[in-house]
Amino acid sequence: MHELRDDRAEAVAQAPASVGNVGVGFDILGHAVAGASDRVIVRRGAEPGVRVVEISGCVTDLPKSARNNTASVAVLEMVRQLGLGAVGLEIVVHKGIPLASGMGGSAASAVGAVAALNELLAERLPTPELYPFALAGESVTTGGAVPGDNVAASLLGGLTLCHPQPGTLPVRLPVPDTIWCALVHPEFQIRTKEARAILPEEFPLKTVVGQSANLAGLLAGCQSGNLDQIARSLQDLLIEPCRSPLIPGFADVKNAALQAGALGCSISGAGPSLFAWFSGEADADAGAAAMVAAFGRHAIAATFLCSPVNCPGVQVL
Amino acid sequence: MHELRDDRAEAVAQAPASVGNVGVGFDILGHAVAGASDRVIVRRGAEPGVRVVEISGCVTDLPKSARNNTASVAVLEMVRQLGLGAVGLEIVVHKGIPLASGMGGSAASAVGAVAALNELLAERLPTPELYPFALAGESVTTGGAVPGDNVAASLLGGLTLCHPQPGTLPVRLPVPDTIWCALVHPEFQIRTKEARAILPEEFPLKTVVGQSANLAGLLAGCQSGNLDQIARSLQDLLIEPCRSPLIPGFADVKNAALQAGALGCSISGAGPSLFAWFSGEADADAGAAAMVAAFGRHAIAATFLCSPVNCPGVQVL
Repeated sequence: MHELRDDRAEAVAQAPASVGNVGVGFDILGHAVAGASDRVIVRRGAEPGVRVVEISGCVTDLPKSARNNTASVAVLEMVRQLGLGAVGLEIVVHKGIPLASGMGGSAASAVGAVAALNELLAERLPTPELYPFALAGESVTTGGAVPGDNVAASLLGGLTLCHPQPGTLPVRLPVPDTIWCALVHPEFQIRTKEARAILPEEFPLKTVVGQSANLAGLLAGCQSGNLDQIARSLQDLLIEPCRSPLIPGFADVKNAALQAGALGCSISGAGPSLFAWFSGEADADAGAAAMVAAFGRHAIAATFLCSPVNCPGVQVL
Repeated sequence: MHELRDDRAEAVAQAPASVGNVGVGFDILGHAVAGASDRVIVRRGAEPGVRVVEISGCVTDLPKSARNNTASVAVLEMVRQLGLGAVGLEIVVHKGIPLASGMGGSAASAVGAVAALNELLAERLPTPELYPFALAGESVTTGGAVPGDNVAASLLGGLTLCHPQPGTLPVRLPVPDTIWCALVHPEFQIRTKEARAILPEEFPLKTVVGQSANLAGLLAGCQSGNLDQIARSLQDLLIEPCRSPLIPGFADVKNAALQAGALGCSISGAGPSLFAWFSGEADADAGAAAMVAAFGRHAIAATFLCSPVNCPGVQVL
C-alpha cells in the first residue's frame, strides 16, 4: 500500500524533449534530447482531488481540466493504481517544449508529473515503473492507445526501446557517447492524428524486411560503436516516404544534413521536426545550421538544438 | 590481383547447419548450430574449370553440373570476382545436413566451398568477405536473389545479422553463452518455394510494429543477457502464423517446448524443422526430447540436435 510522505509537500521534475521513432523504430524507439524540457511541480493541496493550477511557458493554451491534461491524467492514473485515495494534489506545468512539434512535448509533461509525484511517495518506485502512468497521461492526446516511444525516452534518457504489449516496461539501449543529435524544429505544426492518417494500413513484405534489417543494424551498430553500420542502417524505408510530403523542403533539409556529414536524418516522431545524428558535437552544430538554412530557403523559420543521444532522462530538481 | 598459393593443393572446410529467421528476423537473423555440418573439399585439378567430382553423405541426388550446384556456383563466383582465371578446381561435397529441412544445408555447402577455396589463396580474405560468393552459390536454389540469413550464420557462427542491401556484409551479434538451441527435424520436406508462396504480399502496420519490437527486444536481451526479455521477444507475429499450417502438429510441438521451459520456439527457416531456445544444455536436451515425442504423437518421426547458439561458424580442417 502506497502513501505520500509527511516530510515533503512539493516536488519538481524536469523531463526532456525526445525524438520518437528514430527513423527505423516506428512507435518503439526513442531518444531523449537535452536542452528543451517541461518542468512540472506537484504539491499537496488543501482540497482532495487532482488539479492543474497553472500552465506557463511556451505553450499555455492546454486544457486545465484534470481529465484532459496529460500531466494530470498521468497523476490520476498513478493515484488510482497505487491506491493513494482522496489525496489533494496541485500541478503546475511549465512548458519548454513546443506543441505538435514532433519533440515529445506531451510525453514530457506526463513524465515530469509522475516523476514529481513519485518523489512525494513514502516509498519511491524505480523510474521504469512510472512508464504505464505516464503513458496513460499521453493517451489523452489521441483518446486511445498511444505508442510509448517518447514517454520511454523522456523517462529513461538515452536511446530507449518500448513494446506495444501492455505490461512491458521500456529499456535503455547502449549507444556511443560520441553520437550527437541535431533536432531542427520548423515553426509550423503537424497534428499526430494527421500524420497517422496518412499511413497505409499495410506494407509490402520486402519493405518490412529492409526496415527490420535497418532496425537491427542500428541497434547492433550502437552496441558495438560501428559508425559505418549506424550510417548504413539509419534509413527509414517504412514511414518517411509516407510522411515527408507533409514537411515542405524535407528533401533539401535532409540532404543538407547528409552533406554536413550526418550519419542519418529523418522525421522526429510525427514531425514536423527533423533529427539528424552526427559523430561529435561540432558536426552536429554545423549540421543543424545547414538544416536551418535549408528550411530558410523554403521560407520556413526553424530553430534547433543539439544534444548527445546518451543524455539523462527525467530529473527531480 | 589474387592467385592460388603454390604450396597447397587441397583444403577441407566444415560448415555448420543453421537456423534461419530465428523467429523474429525474417530473412535477416540466423544462428549456427553445432552437430550437423557439410564438409567440402576443394583441390587443384589437372583440367581448367570448376567441377563437382563427388557428392556423398545424407544427400546424394544433388546436381553435379557446376552451374547448378550451390558449392560450385559459389566457387565459380569467387574465381570470377577475384580474377583467378582459368584455374582447375575439383570439389567434393560430403553432406551432413538433410535437404529441404530448414537447417540451412544449401548455405552450408556454399559456405564450406568458399572457405576451402579461400584456404588455397596466396592471400586469404577475411571470413565475412566470403559472404557474397556463398550467397551467389545459394541463389541457385531459387534462381534469383536469396536471403543471406543461413549463409551468414554458417559462415560467421553464433547469432548473425545480414542485410538485403547488396554489398553489405553480415555481422555477428552478442548472445549469452548459456543459451542453447534445440533443433528438431521432422522427417518430411518443405520446399522453400512453397513456404515463400504461402506468405501474403503485405502485412498490417500493427503486426509490423509488434514484430519490430520483438526483434529489437531479442537483440537487446541477447546483448544485456536478460532472459526474461529474450523470452518475451522471441515470438514471431509475422511469418509463423502463415507457415505453421505447413507443419502437422506444429502447435503441439511448440507447446511441448514451452512446457519444457523454452524461452521461445518457432520454425527454423522455411521449415519443417522447429527450433527452441533454452537456458542451458540440460533444459535443451529435455526440451528436444519433449518436442520429438510431440511429433511422435502426430505419427511423425523426428530427430534432434542441441547446440549452444554461440557456436563456431565454418572451420578449415
